[in-house]
Amino acid sequence: MEDVLGLFDSIFKSEYGDLNLLGKLLKIIVIFIIIKIIIKVSGKLIDKTLRNKRISHIYSSDRRANTLGQILLKIVKYILYFIGIIIALEEFEINTASILATAGIGGIAIGFGAQSLVKDIITGFFIIMEDQYSVGDLVRIDNFEGFVEELGLRVTKVRAFNGELHIIPNSTIQVVTNSNKGDMRALVKVSVSIDEDIDKVIKILEMACMDIKSSNENITDGPTVLGVTDLGEYNIGITIVAKAKPDTQWSVEREIRKKVKERFDQENIKLPYPKTAILGGNEV
Amino acid sequence: MEDVLGLFDSIFKSEYGDLNLLGKLLKIIVIFIIIKIIIKVSGKLIDKTLRNKRISHIYSSDRRANTLGQILLKIVKYILYFIGIIIALEEFEINTASILATAGIGGIAIGFGAQSLVKDIITGFFIIMEDQYSVGDLVRIDNFEGFVEELGLRVTKVRAFNGELHIIPNSTIQVVTNSNKGDMRALVKVSVSIDEDIDKVIKILEMACMDIKSSNENITDGPTVLGVTDLGEYNIGITIVAKAKPDTQWSVEREIRKKVKERFDQENIKLPYPKTAILGGNEV
Amino acid sequence: MEDVLGLFDSIFKSEYGDLNLLGKLLKIIVIFIIIKIIIKVSGKLIDKTLRNKRISHIYSSDRRANTLGQILLKIVKYILYFIGIIIALEEFEINTASILATAGIGGIAIGFGAQSLVKDIITGFFIIMEDQYSVGDLVRIDNFEGFVEELGLRVTKVRAFNGELHIIPNSTIQVVTNSNKGDMRALVKVSVSIDEDIDKVIKILEMACMDIKSSNENITDGPTVLGVTDLGEYNIGITIVAKAKPDTQWSVEREIRKKVKERFDQENIKLPYPKTAILGGNEV
Amino acid sequence: MEDVLGLFDSIFKSEYGDLNLLGKLLKIIVIFIIIKIIIKVSGKLIDKTLRNKRISHIYSSDRRANTLGQILLKIVKYILYFIGIIIALEEFEINTASILATAGIGGIAIGFGAQSLVKDIITGFFIIMEDQYSVGDLVRIDNFEGFVEELGLRVTKVRAFNGELHIIPNSTIQVVTNSNKGDMRALVKVSVSIDEDIDKVIKILEMACMDIKSSNENITDGPTVLGVTDLGEYNIGITIVAKAKPDTQWSVEREIRKKVKERFDQENIKLPYPKTAILGGNEV
Amino acid sequence: MEDVLGLFDSIFKSEYGDLNLLGKLLKIIVIFIIIKIIIKVSGKLIDKTLRNKRISHIYSSDRRANTLGQILLKIVKYILYFIGIIIALEEFEINTASILATAGIGGIAIGFGAQSLVKDIITGFFIIMEDQYSVGDLVRIDNFEGFVEELGLRVTKVRAFNGELHIIPNSTIQVVTNSNKGDMRALVKVSVSIDEDIDKVIKILEMACMDIKSSNENITDGPTVLGVTDLGEYNIGITIVAKAKPDTQWSVEREIRKKVKERFDQENIKLPYPKTAILGGNEV
Amino acid sequence: MEDVLGLFDSIFKSEYGDLNLLGKLLKIIVIFIIIKIIIKVSGKLIDKTLRNKRISHIYSSDRRANTLGQILLKIVKYILYFIGIIIALEEFEINTASILATAGIGGIAIGFGAQSLVKDIITGFFIIMEDQYSVGDLVRIDNFEGFVEELGLRVTKVRAFNGELHIIPNSTIQVVTNSNKGDMRALVKVSVSIDEDIDKVIKILEMACMDIKSSNENITDGPTVLGVTDLGEYNIGITIVAKAKPDTQWSVEREIRKKVKERFDQENIKLPYPKTAILGGNEV
Amino acid sequence: MEDVLGLFDSIFKSEYGDLNLLGKLLKIIVIFIIIKIIIKVSGKLIDKTLRNKRISHIYSSDRRANTLGQILLKIVKYILYFIGIIIALEEFEINTASILATAGIGGIAIGFGAQSLVKDIITGFFIIMEDQYSVGDLVRIDNFEGFVEELGLRVTKVRAFNGELHIIPNSTIQVVTNSNKGDMRALVKVSVSIDEDIDKVIKILEMACMDIKSSNENITDGPTVLGVTDLGEYNIGITIVAKAKPDTQWSVEREIRKKVKERFDQENIKLPYPKTAILGGNEV
Repeated sequence: MEDVLGLFDSIFKSEYGDLNLLGKLLKIIVIFIIIKIIIKVSGKLIDKTLRNKRISHIYSSDRRANTLGQILLKIVKYILYFIGIIIALEEFEINTASILATAGIGGIAIGFGAQSLVKDIITGFFIIMEDQYSVGDLVRIDNFEGFVEELGLRVTKVRAFNGELHIIPNSTIQVVTNSNKGDMRALVKVSVSIDEDIDKVIKILEMACMDIKSSNENITDGPTVLGVTDLGEYNIGITIVAKAKPDTQWSVEREIRKKVKERFDQENIKLPYPKTAILGGNEV
Repeated sequence: MEDVLGLFDSIFKSEYGDLNLLGKLLKIIVIFIIIKIIIKVSGKLIDKTLRNKRISHIYSSDRRANTLGQILLKIVKYILYFIGIIIALEEFEINTASILATAGIGGIAIGFGAQSLVKDIITGFFIIMEDQYSVGDLVRIDNFEGFVEELGLRVTKVRAFNGELHIIPNSTIQVVTNSNKGDMRALVKVSVSIDEDIDKVIKILEMACMDIKSSNENITDGPTVLGVTDLGEYNIGITIVAKAKPDTQWSVEREIRKKVKERFDQENIKLPYPKTAILGGNEV
Repeated sequence: MEDVLGLFDSIFKSEYGDLNLLGKLLKIIVIFIIIKIIIKVSGKLIDKTLRNKRISHIYSSDRRANTLGQILLKIVKYILYFIGIIIALEEFEINTASILATAGIGGIAIGFGAQSLVKDIITGFFIIMEDQYSVGDLVRIDNFEGFVEELGLRVTKVRAFNGELHIIPNSTIQVVTNSNKGDMRALVKVSVSIDEDIDKVIKILEMACMDIKSSNENITDGPTVLGVTDLGEYNIGITIVAKAKPDTQWSVEREIRKKVKERFDQENIKLPYPKTAILGGNEV
Repeated sequence: MEDVLGLFDSIFKSEYGDLNLLGKLLKIIVIFIIIKIIIKVSGKLIDKTLRNKRISHIYSSDRRANTLGQILLKIVKYILYFIGIIIALEEFEINTASILATAGIGGIAIGFGAQSLVKDIITGFFIIMEDQYSVGDLVRIDNFEGFVEELGLRVTKVRAFNGELHIIPNSTIQVVTNSNKGDMRALVKVSVSIDEDIDKVIKILEMACMDIKSSNENITDGPTVLGVTDLGEYNIGITIVAKAKPDTQWSVEREIRKKVKERFDQENIKLPYPKTAILGGNEV
Repeated sequence: MEDVLGLFDSIFKSEYGDLNLLGKLLKIIVIFIIIKIIIKVSGKLIDKTLRNKRISHIYSSDRRANTLGQILLKIVKYILYFIGIIIALEEFEINTASILATAGIGGIAIGFGAQSLVKDIITGFFIIMEDQYSVGDLVRIDNFEGFVEELGLRVTKVRAFNGELHIIPNSTIQVVTNSNKGDMRALVKVSVSIDEDIDKVIKILEMACMDIKSSNENITDGPTVLGVTDLGEYNIGITIVAKAKPDTQWSVEREIRKKVKERFDQENIKLPYPKTAILGGNEV
Repeated sequence: MEDVLGLFDSIFKSEYGDLNLLGKLLKIIVIFIIIKIIIKVSGKLIDKTLRNKRISHIYSSDRRANTLGQILLKIVKYILYFIGIIIALEEFEINTASILATAGIGGIAIGFGAQSLVKDIITGFFIIMEDQYSVGDLVRIDNFEGFVEELGLRVTKVRAFNGELHIIPNSTIQVVTNSNKGDMRALVKVSVSIDEDIDKVIKILEMACMDIKSSNENITDGPTVLGVTDLGEYNIGITIVAKAKPDTQWSVEREIRKKVKERFDQENIKLPYPKTAILGGNEV
Repeated sequence: MEDVLGLFDSIFKSEYGDLNLLGKLLKIIVIFIIIKIIIKVSGKLIDKTLRNKRISHIYSSDRRANTLGQILLKIVKYILYFIGIIIALEEFEINTASILATAGIGGIAIGFGAQSLVKDIITGFFIIMEDQYSVGDLVRIDNFEGFVEELGLRVTKVRAFNGELHIIPNSTIQVVTNSNKGDMRALVKVSVSIDEDIDKVIKILEMACMDIKSSNENITDGPTVLGVTDLGEYNIGITIVAKAKPDTQWSVEREIRKKVKERFDQENIKLPYPKTAILGGNEV
């Protein structure tokens, strides 16, 4: 043991016990070889882990698993190379720490400035990994609603109903509301005159509902007449709800509205005009 | 004593009194063995503590206790391995502190960026541990209301009434409003013409309330007529309240409304049309 | 003196003047014994201090004093054990500071993340110690109003009127509005036609107030007719106020309203229908 | 000189030139004696300073000066004892700095958490010292209005008009609006029909004002008729203002309103009913 | 040179080359003498600078210059004494830095807590130096409007129109709106029936404006009729503007309004009653 | 090896083994030469990378690639020169780190102050690189809407419809809404009397839509009649939508509105006047 | 070489190899001479750079270039003197770093407090350099609109339309809206009865537009009739737009309004009175 170390010393160490130039170069080369190996191994490990998970059906598609794998590998790569360069620089007595400390004032500014960039990527990573939404989903983020057109690590692009394109940095995304993760509710509020017979009105509405149910295949549940949901000054409010496939709820609502109007016309049910009682001069 | 230490020194220490390569490796191995043991012991301790608590009925289900146990164990594991690796690296004179200090600018950015991730997990941990809500509960978080569909360490998924899925990072959760932690109130405001006899109206309403009480088994308390809660320009407002089982309060309200309308029709109680007194030209 | 120290040295110090293994172990044991003693003494001191205060009637109940005492003792305990462990680790040359510094990036993130947890506990501590509210009080915190159901170090649970349970982290509590710390005001605004004689109306209202005063024992002061508080286009607003026991103010208001309506019907005082002057074609 | 120091050395210093145990204890005792003396002197100084100021009438009461003196003295005391303990601990080679540094992660969290506590006390101190409000004053802080019931270093308690008690942490207090620091304005807006003669109306109002002035001793200035402050579609707005003693402005307003109504009835001044011009079928 | 230094050394330095007690005391005395001199010189310099500026008419009054001078001198004084004390303490081996570092946790809290106090003073200093407002000015700060009653380094006191006193910490002051820094605008919007002849109405208004101009000496410019500023459903809006001396704009507006009403009555210009076209049953 | 190093030592090192003046100067010159070379190489690399990407059509224009290349090169340049100067200063024993540390207080202030400047540039860089918007696009940023007139690294200038120029610092830009990234929706809501036959109305509207489709070439899809989207008290709401080229959607909407009005006039479809039912004295 | 250095050493270095008093003074003098030279050179460089840019017409006036030059030179000056003083103090073993570190608690507070001052100046610098607005421009900053009266490094003074002076710290300025950077839009919305013939109305409006175009020289483009922009219940909305020189858009709007009213009177176009259909008792 002692011998090997002695030999090592005689070649790579200067007389003061420090490494000499050759030793330093060798050390750096060894470090970079180790880094290369770690990267290779990490790549294998990441790939294997993701594939295992994929089998357990957490990730819905190969594409997502591949994207994640590449991102993780890139991060590992950059960090390791960065560490390698720092070690190399320090070997040649360029005190990187001191340089960066000196640059500290700017550093704080940059650190804070870059902060939202980092937050963009972290949030983006979780959105992809947790499958919060995919391209084509109808989502609402803060006040921006529309169909997802592009889903990146830094920004999400959402196409609004009126054609505008919202470009949303992922760091500003907090609560995501996704309308493509299950059946949607169609809701129609009907208002009739307070003088109508409630039971009759509800029966007519229920018949209308049955008509629609049989004819519209987008409806997955209902429509159902809930009952008296409002008791106003000159009107009775009745609510009808149904479940429909995503993105079809509005056309279902339109159909219910049209059918109700037609039925009411047939059955002569009056809608509630605003009413006012006028008091003449003598009464006041 | 001295002898043992002397022997120890001769094998594992270099001539300068430092540990030699063999000594270092041994030290690292010893450290990792100790870490392994601590993890094992921690697992036992966590499990036992949770089981004790479970007996005292704080945790409503085995499932919750197990989840918590696994989370705590994972955290202990990661922290101990991390410490082990740092010690190992330092033994081989790779100054990790300096590397990380050099990476400080990025570090600040990452630290701030990752901050909300940590907050997600801490908040999520407390929500689970304190049983603030469970899957299926009707909750309101900020302005997002609906039924809890999934309750994770990082996000909570809430299904809105209209079918939308709100994906809420736990770090944004402050006040949680849970509607499944007891009986809910059903409240109906009735408005009658100012010309009606209040005592008679209240008596009619009380009779309607008794009818409903006997027929609806979701009602746990009431309904009760509170009295005159509003004295408007042409109307008297009277309020009816009841207690109902969670998620049934709306159907109870609908039934009260319908029953009141029917009773009023029978008893010929008038609802308050808006009234206006008209002054002719001469009076003005 | 010298001798004792010399003896001490020969047993517990190695040849370089440092403590040897035995000395280190002894030192650690001594430290932990001292810690144990400090904890015992602290417990006594805390208990005594709180009992003194209790005598001076600052704390309304034994229960509160005990709670506080246990919290303080726990904090003292955790801090002292923590210090003991650090000292012990340092004795065996495991440089804890360096490990934690290396973990600094994560540390900042955790520090910021845990910040609101600490704030929860500090705020909770003050709420309990200052007796800001107790279980059963009607409070309003931010926009969340209801009866306090549970008051913990981390969260406060408030039951809303409509049955919902608000779970409020103490750190989000700023201004607390407590409605159980004294008599509450009942306030009824009455509006009469501008053609009425004000003095007569006020006299009638004052008589109604006297009726209520004698019959309702929840009223602690008043009701009093304040006078003309609004001079509208076709109405005169008059305000009646009373003081009532906490949580009874609404029923007092309802009673005043009912009594005023009955009196007005008897005395034939008209309420202000909206009035409009109509100008015919010629006048315009 | 040399001799004294030599003697000193031989007793209190160990052979390596450091202080021995005896020396250390002595040093600590001396430090604490000095601390005691400084506290005594500080107490005297604070008292004297405040008494000087009191003479110059800055502090309205002895009570305030005493409160301030005690607070300042307590702060001085805690800081000095804290410093003393640190020095003592360091003498016995318990490296407090390192312990606290190790506890740094928690420290940041605690520091941030305790931050609002410190801000509470600083703000509270200034409120008392600057006499921003006293117990009994009517104040508005943020949206919380009422009479100050208690004024502490950490919280201010404000009793709202409706009986609720607002408990406001001083750190959340920014702008304070105090209604007891001078005469308050009473303001009544009167609206008459656009067909009236303005000069006549103003004369009547001025006469009403003079009546009130002579009869109400709470009024310190006015009431004055300002003139035409609004020119609406069917009404002329005229404003009356007066200055009244604090907390009496509302009763003054009520009296002005009542008197104006009576005068208008006597003089047959019409109030402005809403007017609408109706256009028949032919005109449209 | 060498000799003098040698002599110096023999008296004030101990055998190890450090300063002895005498030397230390001397050093401290010298430092405090230097500090005294610097303060004196600073006082002179500040005074001279301000006096120079005063000549160039930047500071409107001697009082302001004196206030500023005293503030600056106080700051210089406190800083220098603080430095002096630190140096003195360090001479006697009381490591202040370490004490304060140990107190760091509290320090962060205090630093953050005191932050708004420092901001108060910095903002206050600029408000005074830049003459943003003086006592008596009518200002609006955030939503708090009124006359400045007191202008201090830490708070500004503003007396609202209704007699309330707003106590505003300077740190919360951002945009200041000052209404005493030039002539103010008086603006009256007149609305006439859509059936009137615009040219005639404008001519009448211009004549009214000329009347007012000649009689009111507070008006510095105008009043001018701007023209048709609104074209409503049954009315034409015309706007009149004038410039008036600060605080007189409201009385000017009231006078314009009164004069316009009188002129319109003389010339029989109709104001716009709301008009509605009624459609009978057949037309609908 | 030894020899060369020896020679080197004899010329450039002082007797204490440090570099002498000559050695220092030489070292600095060498460093700056290396910096020059790195800058040159970086320029080549950046240029090549961007050109590669340009081929793969990520960057739509040469101009953008050139802009980016120049920015990156400038950043590399400034950083390298900065490092060079620091190294040079340190060679001459001017401890830059200490100077800057001393200037730390100001440094923190400057760091925080400059923070938004850095954020401006980072955000600006991403806007350009990701092609979020170009000059001439119609965008909405926060509440500021208009056409982009200038797109810089620090600010974006947006010309509002009414001619105002919004100068927006890039750091305040979060979500960007771009209206030039695809076809825009034109939407017209039509309201007809509730007495009309819905099927007939829809048929008429569909015919009007077909007319417009054939005549207007800006329309890319539709217009389509969606159906009954509102069921009011006296009106039926029907919605028409179309897709149009960017910036033409408003003229398309205006054309649809005009055409619908003309068709309705021809077919005698009545629009919904507000209707009120009047109840005479006896009914009430 | 060696000789010169030897001579140097003998005069300016003490026996321990440090600089002696003479050497220190000399060093300080040399440093300040170098500083003086750097300032001079910087002044020249700044001046030259700005003059070059001025030629390339980036800076619209000599005045701006001079202002910028002086600001930059002042900053360079203060920084260099500050560095000089620090170096001088350190020479005499007054450890400035330690003093300032000790003052760190206050330092943090001051740093944060002064932060907005620094931000004021940085923002002010960019506003001037980028020519965002000049004195006399009509701007809107946040909610404060008016004409710029003064543009300083720390505050901007804006004179509102009603004569108030807004004093805005530059640090609070984010988006600046400037109304003097191009032609402004004049926009008039005209509403006619739904019974009118649209084509005829549009023709009349277009003729009115042509009249105005020829007579008003402030108009740079239009006025143009856009078409039917609103289809209400009893009215058709038509919009007219024009481009006018800055600050003349309101007078242009007023002229368009007046001309339209006159034309409509001539052509007997009716404006839309609100219409209501009345349903008698039998119909309901």
